[in-house]
Amino acid sequence: MIIVLKPKITKRQEAAVLKEIKKLGYRPHIIRGVERVVIGAIGDERTQHTLETLMTWPQVENVMRVQKRYKLVSREAHPRHSTVRAGDVVIGGPEVVVMAGPCSVESEKQLMKTALAVREAGAHILRGGAFKPRTSPYEFQGLGEKGLKLLAKARAETGMPVITELLAEAHVDLVAEYADILQIGTRNAQNFQLLVAAAKTGRPVLLKRGMAMRIEEWLLAGEYILANENPNLLFCERGIRTFENYTRNTLDLSAIPILKQESHSPVVIDPSQGTGRASLVSALCKGAVAMGADALLIEVHPNPAEAWSDGGQQLTLDGFATLMQELKPFAAAAGRS
Amino acid sequence: MIIVLKPKITKRQEAAVLKEIKKLGYRPHIIRGVERVVIGAIGDERTQHTLETLMTWPQVENVMRVQKRYKLVSREAHPRHSTVRAGDVVIGGPEVVVMAGPCSVESEKQLMKTALAVREAGAHILRGGAFKPRTSPYEFQGLGEKGLKLLAKARAETGMPVITELLAEAHVDLVAEYADILQIGTRNAQNFQLLVAAAKTGRPVLLKRGMAMRIEEWLLAGEYILANENPNLLFCERGIRTFENYTRNTLDLSAIPILKQESHSPVVIDPSQGTGRASLVSALCKGAVAMGADALLIEVHPNPAEAWSDGGQQLTLDGFATLMQELKPFAAAAGRS
Amino acid sequence: MIIVLKPKITKRQEAAVLKEIKKLGYRPHIIRGVERVVIGAIGDERTQHTLETLMTWPQVENVMRVQKRYKLVSREAHPRHSTVRAGDVVIGGPEVVVMAGPCSVESEKQLMKTALAVREAGAHILRGGAFKPRTSPYEFQGLGEKGLKLLAKARAETGMPVITELLAEAHVDLVAEYADILQIGTRNAQNFQLLVAAAKTGRPVLLKRGMAMRIEEWLLAGEYILANENPNLLFCERGIRTFENYTRNTLDLSAIPILKQESHSPVVIDPSQGTGRASLVSALCKGAVAMGADALLIEVHPNPAEAWSDGGQQLTLDGFATLMQELKPFAAAAGRS
Amino acid sequence: MIIVLKPKITKRQEAAVLKEIKKLGYRPHIIRGVERVVIGAIGDERTQHTLETLMTWPQVENVMRVQKRYKLVSREAHPRHSTVRAGDVVIGGPEVVVMAGPCSVESEKQLMKTALAVREAGAHILRGGAFKPRTSPYEFQGLGEKGLKLLAKARAETGMPVITELLAEAHVDLVAEYADILQIGTRNAQNFQLLVAAAKTGRPVLLKRGMAMRIEEWLLAGEYILANENPNLLFCERGIRTFENYTRNTLDLSAIPILKQESHSPVVIDPSQGTGRASLVSALCKGAVAMGADALLIEVHPNPAEAWSDGGQQLTLDGFATLMQELKPFAAAAGRS
Repeated sequence: MIIVLKPKITKRQEAAVLKEIKKLGYRPHIIRGVERVVIGAIGDERTQHTLETLMTWPQVENVMRVQKRYKLVSREAHPRHSTVRAGDVVIGGPEVVVMAGPCSVESEKQLMKTALAVREAGAHILRGGAFKPRTSPYEFQGLGEKGLKLLAKARAETGMPVITELLAEAHVDLVAEYADILQIGTRNAQNFQLLVAAAKTGRPVLLKRGMAMRIEEWLLAGEYILANENPNLLFCERGIRTFENYTRNTLDLSAIPILKQESHSPVVIDPSQGTGRASLVSALCKGAVAMGADALLIEVHPNPAEAWSDGGQQLTLDGFATLMQELKPFAAAAGRS
Repeated sequence: MIIVLKPKITKRQEAAVLKEIKKLGYRPHIIRGVERVVIGAIGDERTQHTLETLMTWPQVENVMRVQKRYKLVSREAHPRHSTVRAGDVVIGGPEVVVMAGPCSVESEKQLMKTALAVREAGAHILRGGAFKPRTSPYEFQGLGEKGLKLLAKARAETGMPVITELLAEAHVDLVAEYADILQIGTRNAQNFQLLVAAAKTGRPVLLKRGMAMRIEEWLLAGEYILANENPNLLFCERGIRTFENYTRNTLDLSAIPILKQESHSPVVIDPSQGTGRASLVSALCKGAVAMGADALLIEVHPNPAEAWSDGGQQLTLDGFATLMQELKPFAAAAGRS
Repeated sequence: MIIVLKPKITKRQEAAVLKEIKKLGYRPHIIRGVERVVIGAIGDERTQHTLETLMTWPQVENVMRVQKRYKLVSREAHPRHSTVRAGDVVIGGPEVVVMAGPCSVESEKQLMKTALAVREAGAHILRGGAFKPRTSPYEFQGLGEKGLKLLAKARAETGMPVITELLAEAHVDLVAEYADILQIGTRNAQNFQLLVAAAKTGRPVLLKRGMAMRIEEWLLAGEYILANENPNLLFCERGIRTFENYTRNTLDLSAIPILKQESHSPVVIDPSQGTGRASLVSALCKGAVAMGADALLIEVHPNPAEAWSDGGQQLTLDGFATLMQELKPFAAAAGRS
Repeated sequence: MIIVLKPKITKRQEAAVLKEIKKLGYRPHIIRGVERVVIGAIGDERTQHTLETLMTWPQVENVMRVQKRYKLVSREAHPRHSTVRAGDVVIGGPEVVVMAGPCSVESEKQLMKTALAVREAGAHILRGGAFKPRTSPYEFQGLGEKGLKLLAKARAETGMPVITELLAEAHVDLVAEYADILQIGTRNAQNFQLLVAAAKTGRPVLLKRGMAMRIEEWLLAGEYILANENPNLLFCERGIRTFENYTRNTLDLSAIPILKQESHSPVVIDPSQGTGRASLVSALCKGAVAMGADALLIEVHPNPAEAWSDGGQQLTLDGFATLMQELKPFAAAAGRS
């Protein structure tokens, strides 16, 4: 760590900082600059006591970290791209994978109709929410286990693996029994107990970015998965919260090249949540594919105006089929299929 | 709800919207304005299907809600201030309540020393984390049950009720057994399963604002507590995430008068998390008290530089005692004691 | 406008609102809903007194606009795409236009070397700052008129039109004399006097998005250009300020499809400012082209490590040449050349 | 500056960095840590070439500044509080100064009525906009010189000094002729040419914080005033832009203690712009005074519902008089009058 001392402090104040640095297990190294003294504290920042606490001392101006806080999730630890397998589908390989389906599972008819249509259009994985986190307690909370059973039925009929959200520790066994990929939603992105429980199932985990999560924090949340011996991690950008209110969220597509530099895990983009507007989904899918996204997560509904949740961002079946055609040249340009 | 149609649409497109509004259970009411047609859809937005899904239709320009989405938590439902009791302490009454203690419970010695000092200085409730949500899996995660037992011991010795964080459904019974108030942290502010589980214990629940939570969403999260028949809700502002990086978070003190207008539940301010810097805590406490906060949540540690978590924002024992003296005239000015 | 009244107000309070609405020139239209009375006020919101001021009245809960606030800049006013011409280059046509060059003009040698190299690699327009807005008064503020003369010389030698920043009314005549396109920077995006002055030169104006500007505000700033009889407007997304600190700004690529829906003016993307990191520029250019950007604005420097401003985000000459090759298949996929 | 090298780089790569650091005028100092090499580069970061450009090199992981970028505005440069005088009023002294008046000057009657009422209630300085920056070109842009003349007349009649906004270099002489304090608005907070022009008049300059301005950037904008030999600088917090939409802006009251630590210039709070809601102004004024604000800037209008700009945030004359009474005990508690 780097400790910057304030100008014009006494020798005794400086000595106290050096003593405390040693006490906390680091080896101090002094640099006397033009105006300020800077101390390089040598030690492993990830496992030793942080020195950021020295900020409470009057003679300390600033404390800065040197090391990256994440390890297993980092590109340094694993220089090649990782792939994650769900059923027969490989995410992170040469093909851009498309996960599509309704926001919520509402009925057998709605789900089957959507599942068959998205498979026909070229989707690889079926998405659908059975347990739904809802801002208001008066909104539809999902069909629960009944929804999971419908997803399993749709899988049996279409051959597509299934991704669905896990939002409570209490549901871990249940959801893991039915789902091929466990989705952790934005509101639970730092619900670490849930992350650990999800990791321990061994199932692939799709970790959505928290609404207010910095890239570093997201990587560290992913570290919770890998540190619990589950290598099957997918990062999913779904928009961050900003001042802009034309869109529901601001989809941060720069997350794609950043994650590709910093980490080895595949990157998924969710343009439906990312904008909240169906009319923007197509353009954002094209951008995501061009920028190297490994997969897309797209909400599709037979009749969005009557959807039980988030209708405003769901594509129609026809809209989805058109999109799949339009994406082809962009996948090709990106060297993907 | 209000539906704004695009200009220059056909009569057939307009009729389709009217038909769908009726199908979804609302009574439409047309207003022909200067350039656009606006439809007022009469019905209960909180219990009926939302019309926001109509945004996916090409002839619809905008859909706006009219009603507030929260009910029990609103000032309309309960015009007088609510109070919440923990042991002998009443929050929301004439006295400004101070909850103080270490970020994490680290040892019996550390906790007892702090507890005795903060009680001596005038604190009413003891805070201390036994289960800690940490950004990195390699950081100290709390003493767990051992920490809870130490808190109970400190309560026995000092007479102060205890507040501690609940961060997993799996711990609900355990934490509720030891704690007088259950704290829901910012990362779990929309972990609705946890909110419901906490509510069902009957214990008072202190609900911290999520880092990216709008006031309306926060009120709706509080609605989850009240709708599960637990009236003992405390809202706690602890800073929101913004672009500013001098402070760890931006403490939104305007939340105090807003919550006082919109809701009846007491309001707590956490200036320690709210800034991440001990040197700013005193000024923010003064502001909070002047603006009508019902309680303060303050981190105090015998030796912040060696704290096992968040040392940078913890006051020393002396610093806390000074602060308690300095707050008195502001509480008096606000008509509080 | 839509005025939502509070529940349980008196008839007299309601009548007062109706009277004021009429006084301010609107025709009120009452809708009695389930819990609340809603008034539709018919009139032209863009030219009449806003009714948002009624928010100060105790009986008023909310006031909502119905009309869009922008006019000339809107797609409604001009259903076809606009094009903007600079020299022989057409922006908004079938070709994706690339504007490239150094952040600051530093010397004849630096500029000429860059200009020749970017033209050789396929750029259409030369960028370079002569007047530089700098966060600190102690940083390099640009060569001023000398910089403009060097740009003119580079134009003469390469045949490329020139874009450069205008940052003060006092420089309008001077900059307009040398530049083919006037760039308005993010810090001046709501410097309306400067916008009007720029518009009046008749030169094309590239309007960067303010760091904290909502799309609607940006469109209204563009309206200042068109309302001053200059149709040659380019919108340039350059990243907005968010909580993320890995990148310097968060490039909001969703602005491309949004502007294409709402407006007719061409859209330019600046990935250099948008990320502040040269290593991310290539991926963001690909995404921008795939999503329908009409032009790119890219910073290029012969030796970024020794650049006098913003070195961290400038591509090398080789890096730029490689990028231009890599973009080709994406432009083709987007139906552009 | 501190340069962090990537792990596992070659000796040659390390040597190249050292060479470049020397070339750019710094003296490098190597620290070999556990995993990474860190270089302390000794030199004056404020006047020498920044080393942040080294971020473009593949072997460099991070570059961090050590020095503060501001100088004259800093508390280090001027350990005691500064005061600023306007007419007979001293800002930054023992008295909390109140600047009050309408958002826009609309007519002689409106201004005089307001001026007399706010003086009667205890205000010290009269505010009023003659030139108004408006988001839309179709909104009222202020009375211009006529407004300035009315302000001068109100000053003559009430004895109160006058503050009004300067928003264009072209108006500098005109506004400086009439105003006792020049206000720089949030949209011009980084319009450096305007800052320099305002500074050169010698008049006190009230610098509002930009909507997306970090504290450091705000201090540096203030540095532009002091570096142009005008010591009469006032910082005015008026809310920053965040995701919250209940309020128009999020008033960052923590700016008060931060500015008091970092700088010596007086701090003014604008709760009217800071919230956009008249009903919140009173509470925020109390908080500001308790936290040590030197002055308040409050919008007051005889009839807010008919105000020509920003009616929703203006207090009535009675509301203002009540507020002035309510503030007294808080000023006393803060040791002010």
